[in-house]
Amino acid sequence: IAKEVAKLLEMKAQLGDEGKAKFVLKTPKGTRDYSPKQMAIRERVFSAIMTCFKRHGAEVIDTPVFELKETLTGKYGEDSKLIYDLKDQGGELLSLRYDLTVPFARYLAMNKITNIKRYHIAKVYRRDNPAMTRGRYREFYQCDFDIAGQFDPMIPDAECLKIVHEILSELQLGDFLIKVNDRRILDGMFAVCGVPDSKFRTICSSVDKLDKMPWEDVRSEMVGEKGLSPEAADRIGEYVRLHGGLDLIEQLLQDPTLSQNKLAKEGLGDMKLLFEYLTLFGITRQICFDLSLARGLDYYTGVIFEAVLVQQENEHVEEPVSVGSVAGGGRYDGLVGMFDPKGRKVPCVGVSIGIERIFSIMEQKVEASAEKIRTTETQVLVASAQKKLLEERLKLISELWDAGIKAEMLYKKNPKLLNQLQYCEDTGVPLVAIVGEQELKDGVVKLRVVATREEVDVRRENLAEEIKTRTSQS
Amino acid sequence: IAKEVAKLLEMKAQLGDEGKAKFVLKTPKGTRDYSPKQMAIRERVFSAIMTCFKRHGAEVIDTPVFELKETLTGKYGEDSKLIYDLKDQGGELLSLRYDLTVPFARYLAMNKITNIKRYHIAKVYRRDNPAMTRGRYREFYQCDFDIAGQFDPMIPDAECLKIVHEILSELQLGDFLIKVNDRRILDGMFAVCGVPDSKFRTICSSVDKLDKMPWEDVRSEMVGEKGLSPEAADRIGEYVRLHGGLDLIEQLLQDPTLSQNKLAKEGLGDMKLLFEYLTLFGITRQICFDLSLARGLDYYTGVIFEAVLVQQENEHVEEPVSVGSVAGGGRYDGLVGMFDPKGRKVPCVGVSIGIERIFSIMEQKVEASAEKIRTTETQVLVASAQKKLLEERLKLISELWDAGIKAEMLYKKNPKLLNQLQYCEDTGVPLVAIVGEQELKDGVVKLRVVATREEVDVRRENLAEEIKTRTSQS
Repeated sequence: IAKEVAKLLEMKAQLGDEGKAKFVLKTPKGTRDYSPKQMAIRERVFSAIMTCFKRHGAEVIDTPVFELKETLTGKYGEDSKLIYDLKDQGGELLSLRYDLTVPFARYLAMNKITNIKRYHIAKVYRRDNPAMTRGRYREFYQCDFDIAGQFDPMIPDAECLKIVHEILSELQLGDFLIKVNDRRILDGMFAVCGVPDSKFRTICSSVDKLDKMPWEDVRSEMVGEKGLSPEAADRIGEYVRLHGGLDLIEQLLQDPTLSQNKLAKEGLGDMKLLFEYLTLFGITRQICFDLSLARGLDYYTGVIFEAVLVQQENEHVEEPVSVGSVAGGGRYDGLVGMFDPKGRKVPCVGVSIGIERIFSIMEQKVEASAEKIRTTETQVLVASAQKKLLEERLKLISELWDAGIKAEMLYKKNPKLLNQLQYCEDTGVPLVAIVGEQELKDGVVKLRVVATREEVDVRRENLAEEIKTRTSQS
Repeated sequence: IAKEVAKLLEMKAQLGDEGKAKFVLKTPKGTRDYSPKQMAIRERVFSAIMTCFKRHGAEVIDTPVFELKETLTGKYGEDSKLIYDLKDQGGELLSLRYDLTVPFARYLAMNKITNIKRYHIAKVYRRDNPAMTRGRYREFYQCDFDIAGQFDPMIPDAECLKIVHEILSELQLGDFLIKVNDRRILDGMFAVCGVPDSKFRTICSSVDKLDKMPWEDVRSEMVGEKGLSPEAADRIGEYVRLHGGLDLIEQLLQDPTLSQNKLAKEGLGDMKLLFEYLTLFGITRQICFDLSLARGLDYYTGVIFEAVLVQQENEHVEEPVSVGSVAGGGRYDGLVGMFDPKGRKVPCVGVSIGIERIFSIMEQKVEASAEKIRTTETQVLVASAQKKLLEERLKLISELWDAGIKAEMLYKKNPKLLNQLQYCEDTGVPLVAIVGEQELKDGVVKLRVVATREEVDVRRENLAEEIKTRTSQS
């Protein structure tokens, strides 16, 4: 029996160990928590972006984090495999949103809205291969600004590019470049190069990889995997190496092959108009018309654009090196019509700021600088110099809270003064309100400035006002 | 052949119709979009809550919307069936967060944090029966404030109640009552009433239903479904009808049966201390020690509380009528230890503000009032009186944006002045900057105050400053 018990105990111990070992303490793959310090940086970035969106008169909406699965079906082309589905637990089939654009279009169709300028800042979900050090996550924020409605050509489109320019300038991330193209120019180009209609979208996906792969690899994908003729691929290769400004647009408008195509001609005409408006905005220096820009998503119908940060490797290198996309967008005139029961179209153009890569850069900048980031806004610590003053501290802090002062105290009956002062040093609280027997008798509170160690007696009824004055400049 | 074709066409028409009819344009069950107007109200409520949390020195964190399924397992008792699981698409098994408390505990254990005061405002998910008119959704916001760390008894607990009191006062939702109890008092009560240890949690769940069901129904659930002896149930019935203040605490401390129980005595002692601190905060008028308060969740270990709005049906009714819970929380000293590999405990207490019901009430209040809610912050509309001034409007609005002014323009080449003024009336834009041939020659812009129709010429270089001055008081 003793043997049996020993055996059982051993088994139990093993099971126990296994149970512990198997429990993994982590966030899901491709996701992360934000610590208070990271949140402080995140709030700064959000604030800059929201301020810009509001400067352009946008309203704000919110939609659920999941949609009916069928709402997302057939909107993302080859990327649809990255959608997170919810488990079928009875009831509707649901998926996590993949972007904010499709839910926006669904919202417009559902509420029969034909005219709105709105922003939406929220998390989206993609079962992609995460590369978290480079700011690529499976759960990440998008900051979207869109203009929906029937308007005169290229005015809202130009505003979207102005917004990208304002935000990237404001955030001081270094030099950036906004590449612009038009799906109509791409489609026209595919047509004149001899790509069959049915292959437009899939060849477009291949072109989209040009920022990550050399032309030779993209070409062999087109010819090998996607069955395009080598001649057509080579003709595409001639076009997609072109980039420039108004001069290139003029040149292509004269291109004997391309200008024969109605779609391409329309796209080039609008591109010219866009560049005229961007000239009025004074931002063409950072804008580049780039025929290799394709954007992966199926729903774009006109102008498309993508902003990248550029780094001068060293002063002698001429070509700037791209460190990745931080914003993108375009025109999608057909998406709302896919939801409307009668197929009524609402033309839309919008921009999405990819915030995670910007966070990464900002975090690195803060780490590299000497800047100490405060994670609270506390103005004053309510402290006591002697023991047995917990009740007095509670009374005073309650008065301060009720007067709108941001105040903390240590949750101890009899904290040491030194510990209370140390807490202020550690967390950046600028003032200490010290209660003591004598001060209570005199109807005053001793107010200490942490940075200078200066101490003054302040009449209790004036304390809140004094704290406000002393912390208003910071 | 004609017959066959007709038949096929008929079939196709049917399928087409079915296809259309089957596509449902809606948000998932129990969820909703927020329109710009609803967002404006939501932002007000959030702002009041965040201001309060910051006043109490809280940092802020964020966690992913989903967790590993095992992270949530065994934390919510009978409510676990309401968790949304994600589909197994290869890789980890995931679930949407059910609250913000369990992710917080996971965060603390994972980062070995033993001391933090943080808030977290985010959406949580419950596959509950939605009652959307009463503000009950499947996707809803929680606004959580928690204090983690080893501190002297009841000081952080009292602060949590102070916070609930501040927020509900600030939001002016009418009279409210904060019910308080302690899991140790409940467990002690169950013990002295003769409930077997193994039934504590399930009987606790039954008691929790007392705010929605009469005692008779709760009693028959205890006896019928859960197999409690009728005598034990009746003894519980005696206790759970008790509610009061310090006097009741004193009375129960003298109760010959209950005071024999170590847990109950501890709980009552702490409850007395809590009431002393709440007296110093001056908020006991809205606090009620209520033995019927149980709270559904498994993880509470000490003080629990719940705030309800009360409505005087009419002046002659003595008992106030509850319209539902708007905040709740309590102490959970064991939860972090469930995640820590070595079982190290971090005592925690926290409060969660249930924002959806508050939104519903605020929305109704706004609807009932004459208040017109603006959904943008636009300061000025850049307009033109004559045709062919699109380029001039684009130049001017760009200048204003760059000067930090919130400005809009109509996206038309040649909008009518009347339409431009009407837009301001509709959306509440207070100023119009009008460019015209003469103004351009004179180097001025005509600034029109929408409300008074007053018009002044402002030199172009002073325009931004003038707009700032004129919109700073609003």
